[in-house]
Amino acid sequence: MQTENELLVFASSMTGAFEGAMQNLFSPGERIIVATNGAFGQRWVEMGQAFGLDVLEVASPWGSDLDCDRVAAAVNADPAITAAICVHCETSTGVVNNVQEFAAAAGADVLTMIDSASGLGACELRTDAWGLDVVIGGGQKALMIPPGLAFASISPRAWQRHCDAKLPRYYFDWDHALDALKSDIPRTPWTPAISLLVQLDAALRMLLAEGLEAAWHRHIVLGRVARAGIQGIGLDLLTQPRDENSPVTTARVPLGIDADYLVRQLYERYSVQIVAGSGHLTDKIIRIGHCGYVDALDVIATIAALELTLDELGVLPRPGAGVAAAVAALAMARGSAAVPPVPASSLA
Amino acid sequence: MQTENELLVFASSMTGAFEGAMQNLFSPGERIIVATNGAFGQRWVEMGQAFGLDVLEVASPWGSDLDCDRVAAAVNADPAITAAICVHCETSTGVVNNVQEFAAAAGADVLTMIDSASGLGACELRTDAWGLDVVIGGGQKALMIPPGLAFASISPRAWQRHCDAKLPRYYFDWDHALDALKSDIPRTPWTPAISLLVQLDAALRMLLAEGLEAAWHRHIVLGRVARAGIQGIGLDLLTQPRDENSPVTTARVPLGIDADYLVRQLYERYSVQIVAGSGHLTDKIIRIGHCGYVDALDVIATIAALELTLDELGVLPRPGAGVAAAVAALAMARGSAAVPPVPASSLA
Repeated sequence: MQTENELLVFASSMTGAFEGAMQNLFSPGERIIVATNGAFGQRWVEMGQAFGLDVLEVASPWGSDLDCDRVAAAVNADPAITAAICVHCETSTGVVNNVQEFAAAAGADVLTMIDSASGLGACELRTDAWGLDVVIGGGQKALMIPPGLAFASISPRAWQRHCDAKLPRYYFDWDHALDALKSDIPRTPWTPAISLLVQLDAALRMLLAEGLEAAWHRHIVLGRVARAGIQGIGLDLLTQPRDENSPVTTARVPLGIDADYLVRQLYERYSVQIVAGSGHLTDKIIRIGHCGYVDALDVIATIAALELTLDELGVLPRPGAGVAAAVAALAMARGSAAVPPVPASSLA
Repeated sequence: MQTENELLVFASSMTGAFEGAMQNLFSPGERIIVATNGAFGQRWVEMGQAFGLDVLEVASPWGSDLDCDRVAAAVNADPAITAAICVHCETSTGVVNNVQEFAAAAGADVLTMIDSASGLGACELRTDAWGLDVVIGGGQKALMIPPGLAFASISPRAWQRHCDAKLPRYYFDWDHALDALKSDIPRTPWTPAISLLVQLDAALRMLLAEGLEAAWHRHIVLGRVARAGIQGIGLDLLTQPRDENSPVTTARVPLGIDADYLVRQLYERYSVQIVAGSGHLTDKIIRIGHCGYVDALDVIATIAALELTLDELGVLPRPGAGVAAAVAALAMARGSAAVPPVPASSLA
């Protein structure tokens, strides 16, 4: 997370650790901003409301940028606003939000809290340099482990706020977690998800051996390969150019084809697993994840499966153009910087 | 769990699912009973207080039985009490509480909520026959999977209560969980701990092939072996006879020996992992877990490591007597009913 802040680990999905951050930071009725441009941002609105917070949603259309001007204006207009929340990588659309700009818009007096579930390890994230008070991440995306672990980094001033926060909590209580972490034998207060921690240890060693910036670059290249493939097929990208560094590529499905049907076909015919959209985009887009242990050949194979399926459905003008474009994009990327298909250390 | 009730699965430690049950069942200020005789019971007192409940603790000394008479008297004296909580297997001492008697003492109008983290799969548990409204279990004990999954069974009348419960919740919200479970493709509302679910599936197949009652019997035999070994060494059991069907055997350490030191020696010299006590018993007892995939030879090896270590410390009169007694106990148990060292299906 590129931070010197306290870092806590929880046995839960990332949604649990995010709930924990709300419980540990806020009091009932507290006024916060959630800037949204997709399904995950809206989840945090819903969660804040479930905990009795006074949530001001600054909504932007799905697939577009966050409205940082409106965030700044809202903060300036209302000194009662204590915190501002947004998603780093909004995987419902593939947009990677500019959290540095978001934090600047929120200003010096408002706590920033970032959902970096799928951003962490895949997209540039500089917690301390960008002044992000609380960042919540998950293990199952770019960190390459199975789901069930989540992380929270907490700045000193967030910890200050925590001391006055009145929402009830226990399982996710940061005091319990920090006490256990700082004890003679560092531990978690409740039973830890041991197998996942062991896997995380191995994954982090791989990432450190590769280098974090190299890992970010690897994800950028995979995105280029995926987008080139999608455009080679002749499909429209949902979010370009907001997805340059996104670990998920989203494309509109051709008219008359149901996204869910297409996804099922890829799985049944080729054992390739991609997903349809969510919310109002459910049947309109497909989403291809390419983070963590997904390598360039996986992406190219996915493009091939998509081409072959669309060809079988009779809606593809030039089968083969997608993979050709994908391979060409990879070759071009490798010209400037060699991109190992998987982290080098995993080959050892 | 021997129930027809709704069963929900959560990506968390068992403590998280227990917190979820409190959030889903109660409203701030609600009056509940927690009957305690060890560290885990006291955890639920602390948790209830953290959520603003009016908790009446009916405490018994650690290592003794729950005081069911006092539970019944408290319920009769105070109609404001809405729920009664206790631990099934109190692993801090090894006592297995009689939850059937507890539920009867709580009476027909009070909701019962049972922590069966280490009881589930190891000790007789008849959720429906005994009228247990909510039972919370974990995967990492007798169900043999790594930690990180927890379960809640919820009776119809507990669900009724849930509809009026006002404590804030989101991650553990039963409505979200049930909606997702009942959708066309059964799922969890948030990212599930996939690898653990796959492992659980395999473990449950093994348990079903063995038969649940056979598994309970297997745990009883392991307890006999462990207790025979401890007594053969000449150590005092903490809780006899309350541990007849316990998946954890607790023994007092000899005077002048520190429990933590003894535990460390076993691990460093023999790679055998047992634990010291908790709370006020921390340095007075050792605890040997024998549930799930732990088999009779593991228990005998543990007794051997304990004997050898105590011998090296110069406090053992007759090295070898412990394992002799343990093997004799196993032979006697096998005389009446063959006890496979591990579930039969795992040998396939």
